[in-house]
Amino acid sequence: MSEKISSVHYINYLSLDKILDAQSPLSGEGKDAAHEEMLFIIIHQTYELWFKQIIHEINSVMDLFKDEKIDEKNVGVVVSRMDRVNKIMSTLIGQLEILETMTSLDFLDFRDQLSPASGFQSHQFRKLEVMLGLKIKKRHQFGGCPYHAQFEGKKKKEILELEDNYSLFNVVENWLERIPFLNIDEFDFTKKYDSAVKEMLNKEIEGIKTATLTDSDREIRIRMIEENKKYFERVLSEEEHNKAIENRETNLSYKATMSALLINLYRDEPILHLPYQFLRSLIELDHKIASWRFRHVQMVEKMLGQKIGTGGSSGQGYLKETVDKHKIFTDLANISTLMISRSYLPQLPQNIKDSLGFNYTK
Amino acid sequence: MSEKISSVHYINYLSLDKILDAQSPLSGEGKDAAHEEMLFIIIHQTYELWFKQIIHEINSVMDLFKDEKIDEKNVGVVVSRMDRVNKIMSTLIGQLEILETMTSLDFLDFRDQLSPASGFQSHQFRKLEVMLGLKIKKRHQFGGCPYHAQFEGKKKKEILELEDNYSLFNVVENWLERIPFLNIDEFDFTKKYDSAVKEMLNKEIEGIKTATLTDSDREIRIRMIEENKKYFERVLSEEEHNKAIENRETNLSYKATMSALLINLYRDEPILHLPYQFLRSLIELDHKIASWRFRHVQMVEKMLGQKIGTGGSSGQGYLKETVDKHKIFTDLANISTLMISRSYLPQLPQNIKDSLGFNYTK
Amino acid sequence: MSEKISSVHYINYLSLDKILDAQSPLSGEGKDAAHEEMLFIIIHQTYELWFKQIIHEINSVMDLFKDEKIDEKNVGVVVSRMDRVNKIMSTLIGQLEILETMTSLDFLDFRDQLSPASGFQSHQFRKLEVMLGLKIKKRHQFGGCPYHAQFEGKKKKEILELEDNYSLFNVVENWLERIPFLNIDEFDFTKKYDSAVKEMLNKEIEGIKTATLTDSDREIRIRMIEENKKYFERVLSEEEHNKAIENRETNLSYKATMSALLINLYRDEPILHLPYQFLRSLIELDHKIASWRFRHVQMVEKMLGQKIGTGGSSGQGYLKETVDKHKIFTDLANISTLMISRSYLPQLPQNIKDSLGFNYTK
Amino acid sequence: MSEKISSVHYINYLSLDKILDAQSPLSGEGKDAAHEEMLFIIIHQTYELWFKQIIHEINSVMDLFKDEKIDEKNVGVVVSRMDRVNKIMSTLIGQLEILETMTSLDFLDFRDQLSPASGFQSHQFRKLEVMLGLKIKKRHQFGGCPYHAQFEGKKKKEILELEDNYSLFNVVENWLERIPFLNIDEFDFTKKYDSAVKEMLNKEIEGIKTATLTDSDREIRIRMIEENKKYFERVLSEEEHNKAIENRETNLSYKATMSALLINLYRDEPILHLPYQFLRSLIELDHKIASWRFRHVQMVEKMLGQKIGTGGSSGQGYLKETVDKHKIFTDLANISTLMISRSYLPQLPQNIKDSLGFNYTK
Repeated sequence: MSEKISSVHYINYLSLDKILDAQSPLSGEGKDAAHEEMLFIIIHQTYELWFKQIIHEINSVMDLFKDEKIDEKNVGVVVSRMDRVNKIMSTLIGQLEILETMTSLDFLDFRDQLSPASGFQSHQFRKLEVMLGLKIKKRHQFGGCPYHAQFEGKKKKEILELEDNYSLFNVVENWLERIPFLNIDEFDFTKKYDSAVKEMLNKEIEGIKTATLTDSDREIRIRMIEENKKYFERVLSEEEHNKAIENRETNLSYKATMSALLINLYRDEPILHLPYQFLRSLIELDHKIASWRFRHVQMVEKMLGQKIGTGGSSGQGYLKETVDKHKIFTDLANISTLMISRSYLPQLPQNIKDSLGFNYTK
Repeated sequence: MSEKISSVHYINYLSLDKILDAQSPLSGEGKDAAHEEMLFIIIHQTYELWFKQIIHEINSVMDLFKDEKIDEKNVGVVVSRMDRVNKIMSTLIGQLEILETMTSLDFLDFRDQLSPASGFQSHQFRKLEVMLGLKIKKRHQFGGCPYHAQFEGKKKKEILELEDNYSLFNVVENWLERIPFLNIDEFDFTKKYDSAVKEMLNKEIEGIKTATLTDSDREIRIRMIEENKKYFERVLSEEEHNKAIENRETNLSYKATMSALLINLYRDEPILHLPYQFLRSLIELDHKIASWRFRHVQMVEKMLGQKIGTGGSSGQGYLKETVDKHKIFTDLANISTLMISRSYLPQLPQNIKDSLGFNYTK
Repeated sequence: MSEKISSVHYINYLSLDKILDAQSPLSGEGKDAAHEEMLFIIIHQTYELWFKQIIHEINSVMDLFKDEKIDEKNVGVVVSRMDRVNKIMSTLIGQLEILETMTSLDFLDFRDQLSPASGFQSHQFRKLEVMLGLKIKKRHQFGGCPYHAQFEGKKKKEILELEDNYSLFNVVENWLERIPFLNIDEFDFTKKYDSAVKEMLNKEIEGIKTATLTDSDREIRIRMIEENKKYFERVLSEEEHNKAIENRETNLSYKATMSALLINLYRDEPILHLPYQFLRSLIELDHKIASWRFRHVQMVEKMLGQKIGTGGSSGQGYLKETVDKHKIFTDLANISTLMISRSYLPQLPQNIKDSLGFNYTK
Repeated sequence: MSEKISSVHYINYLSLDKILDAQSPLSGEGKDAAHEEMLFIIIHQTYELWFKQIIHEINSVMDLFKDEKIDEKNVGVVVSRMDRVNKIMSTLIGQLEILETMTSLDFLDFRDQLSPASGFQSHQFRKLEVMLGLKIKKRHQFGGCPYHAQFEGKKKKEILELEDNYSLFNVVENWLERIPFLNIDEFDFTKKYDSAVKEMLNKEIEGIKTATLTDSDREIRIRMIEENKKYFERVLSEEEHNKAIENRETNLSYKATMSALLINLYRDEPILHLPYQFLRSLIELDHKIASWRFRHVQMVEKMLGQKIGTGGSSGQGYLKETVDKHKIFTDLANISTLMISRSYLPQLPQNIKDSLGFNYTK
């Protein structure tokens, strides 16, 4: 107890002597120094500090999901940690505007010295990608080498081990598969949903048939709905879904997909509200990381242009490719294609409704 | 004079009776109303108001550049108006977060009724694209029809006439061509720059030859510099440049490109400082519009997903294509590839320096 | 059905002919026009559109809380609507940067004509303040007249009626009073909390007594804790609380305050999670409105300076006063002073815990 | 040369081993660790890194102004560095949202241990305040001790020395005093301006006399203008100005104030454009720092509430006081009160106009 009381100065608590002594511009100090190099160093250091924080949060989220049976309390905790991660990502995107105050001419004052050090070598960012679920097979290749070729010793080993471990994607998939609401008593969600979709599409076709339209217009609209029908059939078939997984068109298992669909459709039921917020936060994270890559490409374009036709390696081209390709939770975003309007939504039987509500209000 | 004193109430000054009475949800009012439709209407109305403001600013910028001889005072005015346009764009990007609070399930509550009304039909946004310099040939096609097929009467005519008019791109190109600093007295900028580039690249090759490197490493590096040399040669050749224009690899004329390069390299000279800020603001506008399109794609993805494999038209796919393709000022951004570091920059002769400075300080 | 299919053009759907024809600069059109007046009009129109949206959301939130017994589903809906309102407020704060691109010299070009029209006359904003719960007695007075003196006819009547109606503050207070968890079976929350606080403070005193401190240091620390003790006693006494209400030091009833405290302390229990998010969103709204007023003061300062010593009315001074004074939910923010760390938090008996959980997981 | 080629890895270049090893939560590691303490440490470290960058920029700005005769080129450099500082401040304000994801209950998990370490102890932030020009006499006192009591040794000495040094405020004041345009040949700016103001106010009075107004309304308006007249007279009198300085109502010298006024009024003249941008950037910095303090107060309120009536020291109250009181460049913001509309602005004689323009265009 008595230790707690002994005072800690802010400077020591934050190890500021380490932090504020860690800037060593290659362009030198004094007259020779390139004024702008300090900005380049400091902004990258803040990025790395924030990456550490994001990794801290994602690790804790994965931990909370480890158990077979998740404590309901923890879904709220997870949602607020994901919200924090997304707010950090917003800052990381926004602060690119600071770096963009450095112009290409300024950058040239020290660029030579630091080649080939590049953000591509951020160990923490690679680690984060792997933790989220980016597999080496899915990565866009840069140059001829695998992405981990640039790390050595302990750092390389850590990355390779992470590749073999459970990722956030796996953890989410398993959790979705365990969610027990797809079949309760006599309620079979997939069947109910399937009939609802058919009813909806049939009504749409009826509407078009009786509407005053030109023949060709009517034909086009009916054809579109038929296409939609096929799309839903394919998506609802477990067999077709598994084929799509084999062809790497999709990643999330059939059962997990159905659970995610149920959560999206019945998100207003108390027990599903936080799970819904969690799924949204994962899509949000994917989009924020994509936005960060996208703005990163723009920043590089402002600084270096696009050397069309040069043989030189193009970090910018690499970055551009990863914007879409390195997304992790696209399958969750695509659930939106399966939404049907509330008027067609199958009513839940009262016993199910009760079981999704609070004990108190029962 | 006396009229000025008569009082105007805020409500009348802003025509609020019109503005606040212009929301007519298709889903109806009262019980039937889809709560979220109001948001959908209002956010689109704010977008259109801001588009009007942007068009107001771009029109004034084009006006100020109309004369053969631009009043130097006006470059400052133009820079601050472009800065305003870019701040508006930041707001337009940022406020997408408001729309994203609407989920796909919410959207379905009124989506049926409003089809096919879509943001693609914004007359003002198409007009803005044309004013900036997007030519119909360069546009990404959507469906089988030209983009103006959806407008009629006066609105169609306005768009078609704008296509034939001078655009901001043209105005900037002409202004750059008129800038008189490429050749003053004995100073020939292109020649000087060409020698400086050669000197720089030769020094780099010398450095590599004497460095302790493996043979293969040395070879790679030298090959990279030789590629660079070729790149610079091609860019500096007027003939090659004109070929590139014919092949639509570039748009900006050779002379305008050289002026833009000069402004970028000597931006610290007083007379070039504001022109430099102006060129930067054009690149910034291009990037902001691209960011807006990019975030728009994300918003649609959250709301509708990606219907992989359906035959339905894909507004999202269209949007995605336009992110890069509809950029106007890429040639200005690419000037960055031609920067050389300050130590190689040819010194301006004193008489040129004077002529780029203020009269007072001469 | 067939009507749904008939097409609606974006331009008509959004009443763009009304919206885009509602800008009538007093400085005239053509040569005489003050270029910047358009911005002044358009930004105020977007503010009014967004105020309409905020009022739409707040109305719906109040509606959902009207019933004696709130459907648990609706708390989630309310939270997401409040989140939307707060995102709108962020945009309103951010877009002040656009207006700040107009300088004082620019403003003078049309300012004379529009006097005395001022944002102070926004009927919607006054309405919003009243709806949230700002009572006329609490308002900072401007000039000699009540704030509603500037409205007439229907608009004045609407404001006066709203003053007499239930506000969001009342609705929240009633809802908090109805929350049934302060006394369940043998569990008396206030008593339990009171003992926990005492235990905590006593332990702190013990710690200080045994710590190695100078006598005077020890004395200061013990005195501070004694002050804390008194503070907690006062806050927990219903009698003292009611006195504070009479003296207008606080507004929220004793019972509602205790419920808010319980929600804050046990927010991780499933049934309290969304209520907790809702309370946070109210504090957030208060803060966002305060930030908007604060930034508004800065904007006016940039445009008009502070005429120190002039007799002229000072809109800026008025605004400054309202930043803190017009806050509505300060009592909710002050709950933070009553937090005790998790280690002292009284454990809930299992039957209470169950009753706060989901039926399914029981 | 050969060293330049030897490769530097990103991890070493950024001293990441130091940076990422500098987080030592007092709550411990593993099971005992308070999850949220990491965020608390990391966000403060990013603040300190950014403070280092701001100090780097402000130092360079002061350096560029050191010489008697400022190279015109450098005003552009200074403007872009101030722009960067302001962009950093925007990030610092924005990222408070990350810290606000930590709730008061979370904070209590580790708050005890770190007392009394507080942001108030940031050496760099105090240093920055002093560098900008905040004198100890003007500071709001906290507790009984001067602000530098919390520093020791080298750190204390550095702060005390800075207090005696030139600040950015001094540097700006000197530069404004040196600007040579107040009197050129026969042109006496202050006189010209004085007549223009009188002409303007007289016209306003004439207008009111002939307008259709009630007698009392007319009287009020005329009285307001008379007040304005007195205000201008006082401001334009060097004697009165010096009295105001003695009474600490204003800080900026009379001559510097007149120069700032001239720059504001004739900012469109080429030679004054960048000086105008610079003055604006100083006001902007003041406002950004004030916004940061203001948001900081809100953050503390969310975390700790306002312990009304406790004896404990109130960091929040201190912060609140500094929002306005610690502003440095208020006198520059107040120049706005002296603007007169372009129609009354005295025309510059042609020889003066020439001398404010570019040599080339003469």
